[in-house]
Amino acid sequence: MPGTIHYSTTPFHDLHLALPKDIPPWKRIAQAKRASRDAAIPLEWRLHAHQVPQDRLNVIDVPVECGILTARELAMTEDDAVALVQKLVNREYSSYEVTLAFCKRAAIAQQLVNCLTEVFFERALEAAQRLDAEYAASDVTRGPLHGLPVSLKDCFHISGTDATIGYTALANQPTSHHEESEITRIMRESGAILFCKTNVPVALMAGETYNAIYGYTSNPYNRNLSSGGSSGGESALLALRGAPLGVGTDVGGSVRIPASFCGLYSLKPSFGRFPTYGLRDGLEGQEAVRNSVGPMARSLKAVELWSKAVVQSEPWISADHDCLPIPWRKVEVPQKLCFGILLDDRIVKPLPPVTRALLHTKAALEAAGHTVIEFCIVSRDEPLFIDSLKFALYRSAAAQLLGTTLARTQEPWPRGYAMLEAMVQKKILTTEELVNGPATVSDLWEAQAKRTEYAKRLQKAWTATKDRSGIGREMDALLMPCTPWPASPKYGFTYDNYTSLWNVLDYCATTVPVCNVSSVKDVKPEYQGRNEIEKKIWDDYSPEAVVGCPVSIQLVGRRLHEEYLLGVTKVCDGALRSVGGIPYWSDFKARKASEARC
Amino acid sequence: MPGTIHYSTTPFHDLHLALPKDIPPWKRIAQAKRASRDAAIPLEWRLHAHQVPQDRLNVIDVPVECGILTARELAMTEDDAVALVQKLVNREYSSYEVTLAFCKRAAIAQQLVNCLTEVFFERALEAAQRLDAEYAASDVTRGPLHGLPVSLKDCFHISGTDATIGYTALANQPTSHHEESEITRIMRESGAILFCKTNVPVALMAGETYNAIYGYTSNPYNRNLSSGGSSGGESALLALRGAPLGVGTDVGGSVRIPASFCGLYSLKPSFGRFPTYGLRDGLEGQEAVRNSVGPMARSLKAVELWSKAVVQSEPWISADHDCLPIPWRKVEVPQKLCFGILLDDRIVKPLPPVTRALLHTKAALEAAGHTVIEFCIVSRDEPLFIDSLKFALYRSAAAQLLGTTLARTQEPWPRGYAMLEAMVQKKILTTEELVNGPATVSDLWEAQAKRTEYAKRLQKAWTATKDRSGIGREMDALLMPCTPWPASPKYGFTYDNYTSLWNVLDYCATTVPVCNVSSVKDVKPEYQGRNEIEKKIWDDYSPEAVVGCPVSIQLVGRRLHEEYLLGVTKVCDGALRSVGGIPYWSDFKARKASEARC
Repeated sequence: MPGTIHYSTTPFHDLHLALPKDIPPWKRIAQAKRASRDAAIPLEWRLHAHQVPQDRLNVIDVPVECGILTARELAMTEDDAVALVQKLVNREYSSYEVTLAFCKRAAIAQQLVNCLTEVFFERALEAAQRLDAEYAASDVTRGPLHGLPVSLKDCFHISGTDATIGYTALANQPTSHHEESEITRIMRESGAILFCKTNVPVALMAGETYNAIYGYTSNPYNRNLSSGGSSGGESALLALRGAPLGVGTDVGGSVRIPASFCGLYSLKPSFGRFPTYGLRDGLEGQEAVRNSVGPMARSLKAVELWSKAVVQSEPWISADHDCLPIPWRKVEVPQKLCFGILLDDRIVKPLPPVTRALLHTKAALEAAGHTVIEFCIVSRDEPLFIDSLKFALYRSAAAQLLGTTLARTQEPWPRGYAMLEAMVQKKILTTEELVNGPATVSDLWEAQAKRTEYAKRLQKAWTATKDRSGIGREMDALLMPCTPWPASPKYGFTYDNYTSLWNVLDYCATTVPVCNVSSVKDVKPEYQGRNEIEKKIWDDYSPEAVVGCPVSIQLVGRRLHEEYLLGVTKVCDGALRSVGGIPYWSDFKARKASEARC
Repeated sequence: MPGTIHYSTTPFHDLHLALPKDIPPWKRIAQAKRASRDAAIPLEWRLHAHQVPQDRLNVIDVPVECGILTARELAMTEDDAVALVQKLVNREYSSYEVTLAFCKRAAIAQQLVNCLTEVFFERALEAAQRLDAEYAASDVTRGPLHGLPVSLKDCFHISGTDATIGYTALANQPTSHHEESEITRIMRESGAILFCKTNVPVALMAGETYNAIYGYTSNPYNRNLSSGGSSGGESALLALRGAPLGVGTDVGGSVRIPASFCGLYSLKPSFGRFPTYGLRDGLEGQEAVRNSVGPMARSLKAVELWSKAVVQSEPWISADHDCLPIPWRKVEVPQKLCFGILLDDRIVKPLPPVTRALLHTKAALEAAGHTVIEFCIVSRDEPLFIDSLKFALYRSAAAQLLGTTLARTQEPWPRGYAMLEAMVQKKILTTEELVNGPATVSDLWEAQAKRTEYAKRLQKAWTATKDRSGIGREMDALLMPCTPWPASPKYGFTYDNYTSLWNVLDYCATTVPVCNVSSVKDVKPEYQGRNEIEKKIWDDYSPEAVVGCPVSIQLVGRRLHEEYLLGVTKVCDGALRSVGGIPYWSDFKARKASEARC
């Protein structure tokens, strides 16, 4: 029962009052906010220093080893979301006990990798109890996520909690009930129990997760590495099984990058399938590249469960004007499929583990009887061309907005946001456009017209694969890297074109964990980088530094064909499983055995 | 046969060479272009001055009276598009003879109201002959528009013709085959015979139709009035039965306004149902308010025929990346419907004929057993609020683009574009924003964020009608004015919020002709305008000046529910027919009889 949990009596909230007077506003706010978050972790669930030495990099099994969860709680938290819902419906578990188990495990995850922002375990446990009581009385489940704990990225508004998205300026402004995000409402109506929110980079504008309030979220497989971003709190939490299902957002790769760094399945839909209304968006009113909401989980079934639940709520009726009236479609995926494959975008060649994962997937697909054909997303100059569009599409206005919001509490520009900072301060950068001040609507039109033309060319190229797919129809999905890294080093994320291209073009995409880094198989070959970004990424690479870390791939599907892409992803996943060897799928026991083999 | 048609031997093309040297480039280009268009009208199809005195205002029946068409040709051109296709398929008519009939009637229409831009009758007749031969040989129809002549608005690219959209700067740049618009391609593949393009205002940026090349397109029911815009060449041509089906575009009302002024049915879809790729767009790259393509015709069935044909071509596969994969849906419209009604947006109250048409429709619906309830689109201040958004959404950048393009040939700003001209020349206007230079992307985000919030409120209000609709579900459509006028006076179009609101919000909408202006029923009451725009519109009104002119209404449906809205529109149309009295539906004979009754 909630009453049995003990919280620290240290007055964390008063901490910032004791700070020297000359401390800048942002620092004062950040310290208080962090202290308040930390105080929400009950004393009984705190790890002792000796349990997790600072230099222990892989902490993925600490939740199992630390003794805070009972054996039953461990079993619950190792379970997949779909199995959990089934057991909740069958009354094998109560929502209360499942929620308590995940609260415990999330608390441990927080202490290991710093993944949480808002923690409201007590409210969650009360909500779970109410659901259990209602179910006992009515025998009617609340919805497709009946009783399941679900974690949300910080940008979702949940009443009574902040949604700072990493800005100190947005702290201490708890959401009121009528301001909740539509996804929050749909989650509750589907039966989900919300219990925590997860960390993000400032304004969701980075491929890794850190900010002045909460600090850096690490990768649980190697705490020297990034958990990805901007949904990097989600990925770290989910990898540690601190939640069975989480919800992120993706405007440049923010669901897929963290999912891939932490060995998770995820879906970035095309815009309009899942509601985004009521998000605290880093770039409010930005519509040139649409931000979409997407599920992340340790199983593909869980990703599908969430997607279907949301679409079945018919969000286009009254939840979100931007949602498309496309019901959840039953798809039949043919027996024999064709996959396009892209190994290198000619700007940044992926590091050896990623290439190995792609080729391993190719081999698995071919072994299962499918076809894999090369597919070029671009002629020689085009990826850079897409990159240059981003200035007018959103970067210029984003920089203005960040500058204004940071200034409100004298918060310094985050490390890694140098390009945006320079835009605001009108420093002369190498990119020519930046000298000419903020982008105008005319600049945007020019960029959008170019994008439309490129989109049409790519669409034609995709359709034209029909002639060489060997299956009498166009390719079913495109297999490609998610990023150049298995997981990027801390403060080392510098390249997102592999993911952001599909936001610019609004295709849907999934991630699939494939293998983990091997110091034997993933040695560094001789390779000369073709540009500064690529040089730095390859220079920094050493298999030893990332050994054991998950390696994932991305599958891209046609715009608004989410159901079909999930079906195709399932086939790909099945092909990979049938050739064996991936620890991220399994429960603790199987994982240990598998790791021993690696 | 094409060979039997005689063209003028006057060297129209050389006309401009004979112009004095000091004539500005735009004028030289315009004169030559116009002369070339005029030369494409065969001598046999020219009207004599005595047939149409300049002061004859209503010319709607001249094509019947002038003796250029045979009785069979008159019958063909009076037929509805659906019936025509049926007769073409049944071989009652050949495509050649139908095309010839419409070429003749379009030529007459051109001489009466100046509605055409590009005229390519010979090519059309050859294409029709090929289709007839192919059909005779194969017995397979080419598609759902088999052999049907279809006219397109000037902005559609058709190989070998210009798409000036009213700019002299864009003249003499004929479209190459691979540059054709996707709609052009789909029309051909559906079996349509393209034979002419129709006039538009410069950059499609006005609610009436005039430009420096082709001049003014008049309303065939009263040549002192506008045929509407920007698809005003289409509406004038269709009203004169110079085409059985036409295609326009609508970014602020450009399909609905001309359709309503000329007594036509039309559909403005939500963006993404019909392809827009490859249009010559007045505002290329503009995506804040999406431009959509829509059909216009004298029957609702024709509008549906076109819509279904286009969606069944699956344009999302390779025609247009922006098209949504939503197949043509079968809908069942319930027996008893509920309509919202909006009589006045509190800025510009519609003129008496429009209010009478709305109340007449309400009565017809109620007589047929349906419910009509009041619906407010806004609280007191909001329509102006939407209007003020348009500056950042598109007007600022539009002004820049127009200024640049006009300057290329020293073309003066069109009359009626004073606000855009002032923006470019940074004159201080009453609207405050204009002083601060071109809108930035940040301004756009602010406007878009406000729009999204408003969209959500309206969506909620729509959904909330469920509680008072009396049918257990929300209202089926919103019945409202299309513009304040039955048809606006020449150069008098000043207000488009009734239509443009639905572009800003992306709802779908249809127009339905209801009645015609009556000098008895539509007398001018005492009314004090609430603002300058309204005052001017009411001051200028006199029923005598618009007598006989069609009066239409607009029906608005939920976003992306085109099939349902067409179904509901059919019910409304049926209700109106059952109370009788509308001459725009009927063939010549019935029309004459009906007019005699009016």
